[in-house]
Amino acid sequence: MKVGFIQFDPVFGDIEGNIDTVKRLADSADADLFVLPELFNTGYLFTSHEEVAELSEEIPGGRTTEALSDLSRKKNAWIVAGLAERSGKNFYNSAVLVGPDGYRATYRKIHLFFEETVWFNPGDGEFQVYDIGGCTVGIMICFDWIFPESMRVLSLMGADVICHSANLVLPFCQDAMKTRCLENRVFAVTANRTGTEERGGKSLSYTGKSQITGTRGNVLFQAGEGIEEVGIVEIDVNEARNKEVNEYNNLFDDRRTDFYSALLKDNK
Amino acid sequence: MKVGFIQFDPVFGDIEGNIDTVKRLADSADADLFVLPELFNTGYLFTSHEEVAELSEEIPGGRTTEALSDLSRKKNAWIVAGLAERSGKNFYNSAVLVGPDGYRATYRKIHLFFEETVWFNPGDGEFQVYDIGGCTVGIMICFDWIFPESMRVLSLMGADVICHSANLVLPFCQDAMKTRCLENRVFAVTANRTGTEERGGKSLSYTGKSQITGTRGNVLFQAGEGIEEVGIVEIDVNEARNKEVNEYNNLFDDRRTDFYSALLKDNK
Repeated sequence: MKVGFIQFDPVFGDIEGNIDTVKRLADSADADLFVLPELFNTGYLFTSHEEVAELSEEIPGGRTTEALSDLSRKKNAWIVAGLAERSGKNFYNSAVLVGPDGYRATYRKIHLFFEETVWFNPGDGEFQVYDIGGCTVGIMICFDWIFPESMRVLSLMGADVICHSANLVLPFCQDAMKTRCLENRVFAVTANRTGTEERGGKSLSYTGKSQITGTRGNVLFQAGEGIEEVGIVEIDVNEARNKEVNEYNNLFDDRRTDFYSALLKDNK
Repeated sequence: MKVGFIQFDPVFGDIEGNIDTVKRLADSADADLFVLPELFNTGYLFTSHEEVAELSEEIPGGRTTEALSDLSRKKNAWIVAGLAERSGKNFYNSAVLVGPDGYRATYRKIHLFFEETVWFNPGDGEFQVYDIGGCTVGIMICFDWIFPESMRVLSLMGADVICHSANLVLPFCQDAMKTRCLENRVFAVTANRTGTEERGGKSLSYTGKSQITGTRGNVLFQAGEGIEEVGIVEIDVNEARNKEVNEYNNLFDDRRTDFYSALLKDNK
């Protein structure tokens, strides 16, 4: 199975243009699964609730999900893409999963970062995994990575590949994904964006280096820092289904849940 | 506060000699907390239950705990050290915490590695943290590191410094400790051993590179690979007590435990 990311520099507010860029880049490569950055169609640096309302879309039904479904059908590939979701009066930093048969699922970011907490509602659904035909995927968005619980839960639920849409501004994630993949014996595709956004007196620079990480914490592919790039790697999902470390140890069976109760205590 | 490790090459079965080596190395340095390798007094590569029984000691009461308590008093320092524990008919891969006032606590390794599962009983006590006067420490042993739950639980319980006694044979742990410390905002002292053991037709080489890791995933000190070495770093434990990432985010308060229930499900 071939999995990949599309790394580029989304233009804030230019939904049609950003979708066109993705179509152009997807045309250059073939994969069974493409992961796009967080908020790939709108850009990231919102400055008002009005902007969020204007640029958010219903999932499914919105034009971006429709366009991605068309692309998915045309490429005969699954796509995970970050976009701003409107649901009634609520707005979410979401990721959509579409396949050749159209819309499949939505993940609403559970751990919001920085001013996202101002613009978006926190995700209100459980982590889920999805069988996309011979491969089970889990979805997380950007800052979810720093909480080991995110990938652990998805992996325990059976994810082979973690689809990780991101808009990273700090340098820590790519290295951490090596530990995350190693401890869970899963693959991860971290799709980051590039470029700098300057809006409303604020500025954010995104760090690129989108990364496909292997089940042994090995980097299978890492993109450049500031360039448009499509990275694709052939993987064997069976690697993620055997959690044995040696004849005595298994990463999941050896978990001693009786001693982990502190993990679910709310310590606020 | 000064924390450190003592890295050396224990001689299998030579408890007195290994204790003497630790005394000699501790003489060369001052710290408030020393961490010693896993099974520092006996060596690691057991070949029979008889050997385990012969070399294991009661904690407290055994000669190693007594010697460490003496050293602790002399140095006016806390010591965490790995040793084989006998308790009735049971044997554990344990770590002892001693201070200037003597024995304080025992941790029995919860996640046993490889043939340890043959020689030792799995730890039967909860993870605990201990106030050693201005600093709260948690203890884990070697392979515990690969389970993110170990350090997460200790950190949620209030540990500032993770005392990590190890006999590492694989190259992954030191990098992973950067992620562990970053995600939990804690310090860690990983005390590894060096040398090669050849016993009963088997051979194990230990990788050294004992490491003191900072709260931002930064390496504060890393020892050489095959040398005897004492590493000591001055740390400010307050760094570990503020879990804020920015004005909107906090590593612990932002945990969304409602969505983590899979962590405690037994998936065997």
